[in-house]
Formats: sequence, C-alpha cells, structure tokens
Amino acid sequence: MHMTTINRNYLKLPGSYLFSEIARRVSVYADANPDKKLIRLGIGDVTRPLVPAVTAAMHAAVDEMATAEGFHGYGPEQGYDFLREAIAAHDYHARGVEIDPSEIFVSDGAKSDCGNIGDIFGTDNVVAVCDPVYPVYVDTNAMAGRAGDFSEETGKWNRLVYMPCVAENGFAPAIPEEKADLVYLCFPNNPTGAVATRAQLQAWVDWANANGSVILFDSAYEAFISDPEIPHTIFEIPGAKTCAIEFRSFSKTAGFTGTRCAYTVVPKALERDGASLNALWNRRQCTKFNGVPYVVQRGAAAIYTPEGHAQVMENIAFYKRNAKVIFDGLKAAGLTVSGGENSPYVWAKTPDGMGSWEFFDKLLHQANVVTTPGAGFGPSGEGYIRLTAFGGADATVEAVERICKVL
Amino acid sequence: MHMTTINRNYLKLPGSYLFSEIARRVSVYADANPDKKLIRLGIGDVTRPLVPAVTAAMHAAVDEMATAEGFHGYGPEQGYDFLREAIAAHDYHARGVEIDPSEIFVSDGAKSDCGNIGDIFGTDNVVAVCDPVYPVYVDTNAMAGRAGDFSEETGKWNRLVYMPCVAENGFAPAIPEEKADLVYLCFPNNPTGAVATRAQLQAWVDWANANGSVILFDSAYEAFISDPEIPHTIFEIPGAKTCAIEFRSFSKTAGFTGTRCAYTVVPKALERDGASLNALWNRRQCTKFNGVPYVVQRGAAAIYTPEGHAQVMENIAFYKRNAKVIFDGLKAAGLTVSGGENSPYVWAKTPDGMGSWEFFDKLLHQANVVTTPGAGFGPSGEGYIRLTAFGGADATVEAVERICKVL
Repeated sequence: MHMTTINRNYLKLPGSYLFSEIARRVSVYADANPDKKLIRLGIGDVTRPLVPAVTAAMHAAVDEMATAEGFHGYGPEQGYDFLREAIAAHDYHARGVEIDPSEIFVSDGAKSDCGNIGDIFGTDNVVAVCDPVYPVYVDTNAMAGRAGDFSEETGKWNRLVYMPCVAENGFAPAIPEEKADLVYLCFPNNPTGAVATRAQLQAWVDWANANGSVILFDSAYEAFISDPEIPHTIFEIPGAKTCAIEFRSFSKTAGFTGTRCAYTVVPKALERDGASLNALWNRRQCTKFNGVPYVVQRGAAAIYTPEGHAQVMENIAFYKRNAKVIFDGLKAAGLTVSGGENSPYVWAKTPDGMGSWEFFDKLLHQANVVTTPGAGFGPSGEGYIRLTAFGGADATVEAVERICKVL
Repeated sequence: MHMTTINRNYLKLPGSYLFSEIARRVSVYADANPDKKLIRLGIGDVTRPLVPAVTAAMHAAVDEMATAEGFHGYGPEQGYDFLREAIAAHDYHARGVEIDPSEIFVSDGAKSDCGNIGDIFGTDNVVAVCDPVYPVYVDTNAMAGRAGDFSEETGKWNRLVYMPCVAENGFAPAIPEEKADLVYLCFPNNPTGAVATRAQLQAWVDWANANGSVILFDSAYEAFISDPEIPHTIFEIPGAKTCAIEFRSFSKTAGFTGTRCAYTVVPKALERDGASLNALWNRRQCTKFNGVPYVVQRGAAAIYTPEGHAQVMENIAFYKRNAKVIFDGLKAAGLTVSGGENSPYVWAKTPDGMGSWEFFDKLLHQANVVTTPGAGFGPSGEGYIRLTAFGGADATVEAVERICKVL
C-alpha cells in the first residue's frame, strides 16, 4: 500500500505558538485568581468600535444585497474598482506616489497575503527576517521549506538570515552581508515600534535593486506615523517599484481586525526571473481567492471619505494617547523604553536583565497586566516585553500605575 | 548578481483561463452588436438577492460592531462557535452524521480551501481529477508542481491522473487503476450536474481506505439534491472519516458568491503519513488566515434558523425550476441532456458532433445566449456545453426558446 504524504515541513514547526502559550498562562492564573481584574496589553487587537461612516456604508451595502438590482455576486478577485481607486488616490497619489489601481490587490488580510505571497516565489530563495519578528513571516516560510530546520537551542531556523534589531543599532536591521533574496521589513515595526527613516529605506531599496532581491514591506501600522519625516509607504522611496511589494491592512487603521480587509501592492515594474510579479500574483489570487465581501469593501471605501477619514484618525489619536501613557509611565518608573511614538507598540527592556517570560509572569501575577514577552518574537527579543496601545484609556492608565507599583 | 527566483510552475499554466476567454468572445460580439440582448447562462453565479433572514442578521451584526460592547476584533481563525455548532447540528447531525465543531473550519470560500488544502500535502503525491473538471483543482496543483507539464496537444498535464466522465459511464468516474493519492470528487458535479449514489461513494471510500488515499470531496451544490437516495455529504458513507475532507460553501446554497463564506470539514480520525490532517489544516489556517468577517458569519448562521432555511430553500427551488426549464426545453429540441435534476447545471451534448467552442459561438451569435463550452473543463468535455440555472425565470425561458429556434 502506498500512502499519501503530508507536507513534512509542518512537522518542523515548534509546538507552541506564542499567543497560545500566553493565553494558557493567563488562563491558569485567572482560574486560580478569579477575583483579580486582568488588564490585557498583550495581543495587538483593537477595541474601539467601527466608526459611523464605515457602519453606515456597510448597512447601505447590506440593503443593496437584499434587492435584485443592488445584489452583488462574484466580484473581481482583485477587489472592486471603487476601492482600488480610492486606495490609489488617497494612500499613494496624495503622498506624491503614483500607483495604478491595477497594482493593488484587495484581500482579506495582511496575514493571508504575507503568507500566501510565498506561493509565487521559488522555494530555493534565501529569506531574511528581522529578529525579533512577526512570527507569520517565519512560519509561512518554514511551511514552504525555505527556512530549513529549527534549532531549539538557538531558537533559529538554519536557512533563514536573521537581522538583529537591538538597542545597539536603534532597532534598525543592518543590510545582510550574506545572500538574501526575499527580505521582510515591517515599519512601523511589530514588535519593537521602531520606524525607518527615508535614508534607511533608500539604502534597502538601492541594495535590493543592486542585488535582484525583493523587499516584502509590511506597513500595517503606517496610520500611526505622526513624524512628517517618516515615509508611510516604501513607494515614497525612488527605485522601490522595481524591488518591493507592500502589504497594507485596514485592521489597525480602521479597526477591521474582525471585519477583514487589507491590500497588497505589486508594481507592474517589478520583474524577477523573467516574469512580472504583478502577473504572477494576479494569477495566484484569481485561482485561489474569490475576493473580499462586497459589504466589507464598501465599509473599507468609507474610510476614504472626509468624515470617515476624520473618524478613523480620532481612533488612531486615542490609541496614540494610550501609547504615550505607557511610554511615559514606564520611562518614569525607570524602564528603558522605545517605540510608541509612531506606533501602537511600546518595547520595554526588562529590569535587571530579567528574562522576558519571567518579567511577563511577574507582571501577570503582581500587576495583573498581560504583556507579550519579547523572546516570543525571536532570540533578540529576549530581555524585552511588548505593550500595546489598543486597550481602553482608563484601563491603560491603571495598567501602567500597577506596573509602576510593582517596579 | 544572484536573483530572486519565482515559482516556475506558474509559467506552465496555459495562458487563457476559460471564463476570461468566454468574456472576451462575449465582449467582442456585444460591442459589434449593441442592439442584441444577451442572456447569460454561462458562469455559475447566482442572481437572487440575499434572503431577509441573512440581511437582518448582517444588519444586527453591523450594529453590534458599532458599539464598544458588541465590537468583535480578531475572531477564531476556525470560525465562531455559533456557526461551527450550527453547521455540525444542521448539515451533519440532522442527517445522522456526527461531526464535531472542531472538525469544521469556516473560510472565505470553497475555491480558497480547494486550492489551499494542497499546502498540507507533499508535492510528490499523485493527484486524480475528473475530466471534465472544475479548473481550480487542476491549476492549483499545477502551481504546486504536482501536475507536471501541460501538453497543448492532449490538453492534459502529464503527472495528473484523469478520470473521464462521459456518456458511456453515465458521467461517473471509474476508480483509477494507477496510483492516486489525492482524488478530487465533486457531487453534485460541476460541470456535468451528475450525482453520485451511495454505492458509488462507498466504493470510493473503501478504495481510499484500502490504498491510503485521500478524497477531497467538493459538495458545494448539495442543496440542489432533491432525490432522497442521494447522499448530501461524503460523511454519510461509513469509513469516510478516515479518508475524506469535505468542502462546502454558502455561495450557491444561500447566494453568498459576493458575501464569501464556506467551510471545510477535516475529521480528527483522518491521519496520513503519521500526522493528523485536522491538526495540519488547523496550523495552516491559524498561520495564513485570520477568519471570516464577524458580520458575514452572523449572516451565514441565519440560514440555519427555521425562517432562514425556508427562505434559502425557496431560492433553491426557484433555480431548480430554471434547471427543469433548460433540461426539458433542450431535450424537447432533440439535444441529449443530463444533470439538472439534483444540480443547477445542465450538461448538453452538441448536435451533429459539433465542437464545444463552435456550438458556444453559434448560440452566442444566433441565439444571443452565453453558455460554457465543455471543452474548457477538460478534453472529455469536448462536444458538450454547460448551462446554468442561476438566471432569472423569464430570461431562462426566453433563452431556451431562442436556443430551440436555432436548433
């Protein structure tokens, strides 16, 4: 008897996913201490409701779907023109960047796209990731066989190139000296909250063009940038259209984590190995994806109206105030903190060289605050924790007060 | 300079996708004949609006999302319990089949799942498909490297096993004599409209269990089954839980082609190569997918309420009347027809041995009716066309009258 084989790369993945392990520890503590009121500043999920412009557009779209005339069946796999055009106009043209709507692919999430993008690349490519890093980049490449084997001892995969982002380099990854074909960059960064300057991004673009590499640029948190010197998109950088793919999401910009809409920009000028990556991604999406719900795309388009934009920027401002509360509070308590200024994430060094998980447990047990241990994002995250600005205003203030008391 | 490589399997895909070529021919004809009123019985997209129970549930969910208390951020990647439990109860338990909610993975579409399921299997598996076949099974395996090379001459990929579904075998594929690890079956079938009997499915299940193969069972059209002897799910067949994965969709059942919700059942008893396929698919979905919009899941759950069920079954009955109009009309006109009884698809033999595309063009030009040429679904589809029951009632009657006049 022959036997169907599985993708054995899956078996190489380490067992416990970061957020599952956090959930497990929180649940054990909460069950043993039902009287304690936990405040969660761990996982990066938003809490503010959808804004009125978005829900009005979604209601109107549901009403359309209830009539024969307004009903929408299969839409374009790449997204409706009304949304692609709004994105091109507001997220790019308004910043002086020309991106054609046909270069924009609307999807159900940046997580899906960051993972699925691997479909169009060879499995022989060398992948470079920041350390610490959003685990999806690593795990999806491990599943595709590009990561090699994982070592429990080092916490690293032997075919990945790791780019440490540490205090010594201001959490800015250095361009790797070894061969790297696909480089994941995320700015504003998850988890460190660091941003990249125009000069830093220009160096990456120049390197990628010189080396034939492709930058996979995740800018899911661009709405949090307030410093006018910091680019919002990699395509603000000359030369980026021949070396970069950009991932964007409405999750953090407009509270769409449970509504699911994102987009990926693949410039038509981007070619590798004799092929247009725009054409390959288009083929991938047409074959394996059927588009985003009409109702959701209408909701997403509403954030590009003047009132919708003002409403979502109010929510961003709300979260940014939380970030400042966390940043200032922990700094005043003597912790070394970074991020938080153009980002919803604050990256804090543990006191006295304490381990990430040890500090996580201490804050869980003594302050009843849930954070994310930096070590969960990679070896260079050891000695840090990540705090997120997505909680309520009062809860954030109280959480910081409790943490300061523990310190 | 090294260079990032692409997935070169993509370059092996034949250029023109079936429905693009149809759209092109229709557009050329329509532009040249702006006075002609085309009736489209080609692509399988629904036309009836969402039913009131669904839109009411979606409106209520949008209202929830507009409040801090009712807001839903990231949901479970596998789908909310309220939907998974409704599916388990109504689509399985009610038919005497025990499927646990943890075996159900809610997704954005059967097309996505039928394509993405390949992620968890080795690329060395031999894949068997019906001929004619829904192109997604073939193209996604070609992209993954399991199909080998395509021959324009034969219209076949050299590593795929083709199972002809022709008049001689009543459009029922024979179990292949050669090795086949992954077998895609679709009943009620797209494109032929054929159904599988209990005995036929039992033979497949017994063969798969004896050979260690996995059946990928697409039952996207099960709502159209009215014959009480025809199974609605592969899991009605004893032994199926150790050899089958089932794909279901709300697209045709509840008019969700533009609303996007489906689900895949991976039984916990299904193991291959020493691994649980349920665990692998769970890992795949958790890593590369972030769940279906809350609003959409609430809409989908509404079809399991008594009123929602009655409303969607009215739409199914509407489409089934169209199917009967097509079937009876073409038969009376002297064509050999099949399908259409437990399916929205009618499969009609072209007259006088005419080629599929020739008959397609004839009907487009002379009857102004758009159909789908059978040859687009594979070599054994040559000499047939597919007609779909998803049009309006009057338009369907008129289309059939026009076709009869041409014949």
